[in-house]
Amino acid sequence: MASSFYPPQRTLMGPGPSDVSPRVLGALSRPTIGHLDPMFIALMDEIKTLLQYAFQTENELTLPISAPGSAGMEACFVNLVSPGDKVIVCQNGVFGGRMQENVERCGATAVMVQDNWGEPVSVDKVAAAFDQHPDANLLAFVHAETSTGVRSDAAALCALATQRNALSIVDAVTSLGGIELQVDKWGADAVYSGTQKCLSCIPGISPVTFSARAVERISNRTHKVQSWFLDMQLVMGYWGGSSKRAYHHTAPVNDLYALHESLVMLQEEGLEAAFQRHQHNHLALVAGLEAMGLAMAVAPECRLPQLNSVLIPEGVDDAALRASLLEEFDLEIGAGLGALAGKTWRIGLMGFASSERNVITCLSALEAILCRQNAPINSGKALNAAQAVFKG
Amino acid sequence: MASSFYPPQRTLMGPGPSDVSPRVLGALSRPTIGHLDPMFIALMDEIKTLLQYAFQTENELTLPISAPGSAGMEACFVNLVSPGDKVIVCQNGVFGGRMQENVERCGATAVMVQDNWGEPVSVDKVAAAFDQHPDANLLAFVHAETSTGVRSDAAALCALATQRNALSIVDAVTSLGGIELQVDKWGADAVYSGTQKCLSCIPGISPVTFSARAVERISNRTHKVQSWFLDMQLVMGYWGGSSKRAYHHTAPVNDLYALHESLVMLQEEGLEAAFQRHQHNHLALVAGLEAMGLAMAVAPECRLPQLNSVLIPEGVDDAALRASLLEEFDLEIGAGLGALAGKTWRIGLMGFASSERNVITCLSALEAILCRQNAPINSGKALNAAQAVFKG
Repeated sequence: MASSFYPPQRTLMGPGPSDVSPRVLGALSRPTIGHLDPMFIALMDEIKTLLQYAFQTENELTLPISAPGSAGMEACFVNLVSPGDKVIVCQNGVFGGRMQENVERCGATAVMVQDNWGEPVSVDKVAAAFDQHPDANLLAFVHAETSTGVRSDAAALCALATQRNALSIVDAVTSLGGIELQVDKWGADAVYSGTQKCLSCIPGISPVTFSARAVERISNRTHKVQSWFLDMQLVMGYWGGSSKRAYHHTAPVNDLYALHESLVMLQEEGLEAAFQRHQHNHLALVAGLEAMGLAMAVAPECRLPQLNSVLIPEGVDDAALRASLLEEFDLEIGAGLGALAGKTWRIGLMGFASSERNVITCLSALEAILCRQNAPINSGKALNAAQAVFKG
Repeated sequence: MASSFYPPQRTLMGPGPSDVSPRVLGALSRPTIGHLDPMFIALMDEIKTLLQYAFQTENELTLPISAPGSAGMEACFVNLVSPGDKVIVCQNGVFGGRMQENVERCGATAVMVQDNWGEPVSVDKVAAAFDQHPDANLLAFVHAETSTGVRSDAAALCALATQRNALSIVDAVTSLGGIELQVDKWGADAVYSGTQKCLSCIPGISPVTFSARAVERISNRTHKVQSWFLDMQLVMGYWGGSSKRAYHHTAPVNDLYALHESLVMLQEEGLEAAFQRHQHNHLALVAGLEAMGLAMAVAPECRLPQLNSVLIPEGVDDAALRASLLEEFDLEIGAGLGALAGKTWRIGLMGFASSERNVITCLSALEAILCRQNAPINSGKALNAAQAVFKG
C-alpha cells in the first residue's frame, strides 16, 4: 500500500522550479470552486490584468495557458505558424532546439541561426538571415536562456523582426518578473513564460501574451490550428472579456489561485523593485563565488541575475557535490545542460528564492563541500564579499 | 491594486470540478521540490503504480499528462492518428464533437456515429459503421458522457474494435474512480481521464494509459506527432522506468502531490467500495428527487451514478434556481449543455462529493427553492425517501 507523501523542505536554487512563497502555497490550497462560478470568472479577469502589468502590455489577449511553459511555447508556434511558412529560429542553448521542433511539426521550415552556448543571440547574424530569407515571416528567440544563464537583446531582436515585416515569438520563461521585459515598448508579438521561475509560484502554468498583429495573423489563418487544446481562438472564447464565456476546458482552479497570489505579490513589490532585488542578490552571489576563486561562465554584460552559470573547477566531482548539497543541506542547484553538462553549475536566484538568506546559504554550503573535496578554492572569503555587496 | 483572493466554501455538485478532499488540498500545499529530485522521481513511480490500479491495467505507459482532460484527449488522438487515417467517432453528447475536431486536426477522416443526447452509444450502429468502413483503424467513444449523464457499454465497444482490427480510444474523464473501468479486461487501447471528477482531486491533470498495441502503433509512426508537448515518445522518456530520465517539461510538482494523495485515498477505500458508495448515494438522490415528483432524464439502465441528469419541471426558472443555490446555499449544480441546455440539471455526486451529507444538502436546498418558486412538486417527502435508501 502506498502512503501519503511528505516532501522534504528544500531550498530550490536550480533552474526552476524555484522556492515557492508560503503565501502562494497558502492560496493554492484554498477551497476549490467551480470554473464557471461568478467569483472565479472575476478572478480570471483580475489575473489577466495582473499579467498585463507583469508583461508590461495592454494586449487584450494576455492569459495563462493551463499547462507548463512547453505548452505555452507550443501555443505560440501552432497559432502563428502555418504549413509552408519560413521561421528564423535563434539557438544559443537548449530551448532554440525545441523551437525548431515546434516549427517543423507545424509543417514549416526553420532557418537556424546558431550562436555558442553561453553567448547571446547575435543580432547581426539574425539580420543576415533575414537578408538571405526575406520571405521569413516570424523570428523566434529565447530572451533568458535557462540552460546557459544568458540574456539576449530582446528589444533589438523584436525591432529587427518588425523592420523585416515579421512577427516575433519571445521565450520569456525565465525572464518574467526577474529582469526587464517590455512587451509593448519592444513590440514583441507573442511571448510565453512559466510560473515556476521568477514568479515564486508552483510549476504548471504558462502565461502568454499576443499583440494585435499576432491576433490578426491568427484570425486570418486559412489552416486550422493543429492543436484543439491550444487553439487561441477557442482559449480566447473561454478567457474572453464577454460575460458569455464559451466552455473550452476546465481551468486548473487552484493553480490559478496560486498564480493570482504570486502576481499580487509582484504588484505589491513593484516590477522595478523586483528587478533590483534580483540584481542585488546576483551581484552578492557573484562576489562571493569569485572571492572563493570560482569563475562565472557568462560575460558580465549578458549575465542573467536569476540564473548564474558557474564553471566547475577542475578535479571537482560534480554529481557528488550536488548530491551532498541536496542530502546534507537540502539545497538544490542545477547541473549544466547539453553542451555544458559537467562543465557548469546553474545557481538560480529566482523570485522568492532570490533572497540574501539563500545567497549566504548557498555560498557557505558550496564552500564547505568544496573544501571537503580539497578543491583549489580560497576559503573564508566568500561571505564577507557577499555581505559587502548587501551593505552596498 | 489587486488583493489576495479568498474563495467561498462551496459544495460542488456540478459536472466537475467536484469537492476536493481536505487531505488532497493539504498535500497540494506541501513544499515544492525539484522535478529531478530523487524523492520526486520516486513519487512519479508511485503515481504510475497507483494509476495502474485505478485504471485496472498493467500497461507500462500509464501516467498523468501535465494538463487538463482536454489535453489528455488530444494526447490520445495525436499519437494514434496519422494523416489519412479513418476514425469511427461516436457522438451522444458534447465530447464526441470534440473528438471529431481532434481527428480532423490530425488530417484524418472522422466517420460519425450519432446517437441521441441522453442515450448510450449504439453498439449495432458502430458495427454497421465498421461494415461500411472496413479500413477504419480506430474507434473513439465516451464511456461516461458528462454532458448527459449516460454510461455507454465500453466493454462491448472495445471488444468490437479489437474484432475489427481497430484500436479504441476511451474517454473516461468522468468514469475513473466512480464506476467500473477495466482497461485490461476490456482491451481498451488508449484511455484518458481527469483529476477533477471522481478522484476527489483538483482540476488540471489528465491520467492516461496506452496498451501495448497502442504503443506499437506509436512506435511505428512514420509521421511525427504534431504536438511536441503531447508526443508520448518524449513524455515516456520523462516518465519512463529507467533511472536516466530525459528532460521534457517541468512536471507540475504540487498538482502531482495532490493526485498522489487522491490515489492513495482511492487505494485505501478500494475501487469496489468507491463504486458502491457512488451507486448508493446515487440511488438515494434519485429516490429523493422522484419522491419530490421530479423525473430523471436518462433511463435507469444507463444512468451514471456520479452524474445525475434531472428534467427541469415546466415553469421553473432554471438560471434563477441555480443562482439561488449558489448564493444562498453555496451549492453548485450544473446546467444542461448543448441540446439539453435549459432542459436538465446535472447533479454531480463525484468522488469526495459523493456523500450522504451532500445528497441531503442538495435535496433540501432544491426543495426549498422549488417551493418558493411555486413549482408543482411534492414537498416534505424527499428526505425520508433518501434516508430509506441510506438505511438500506
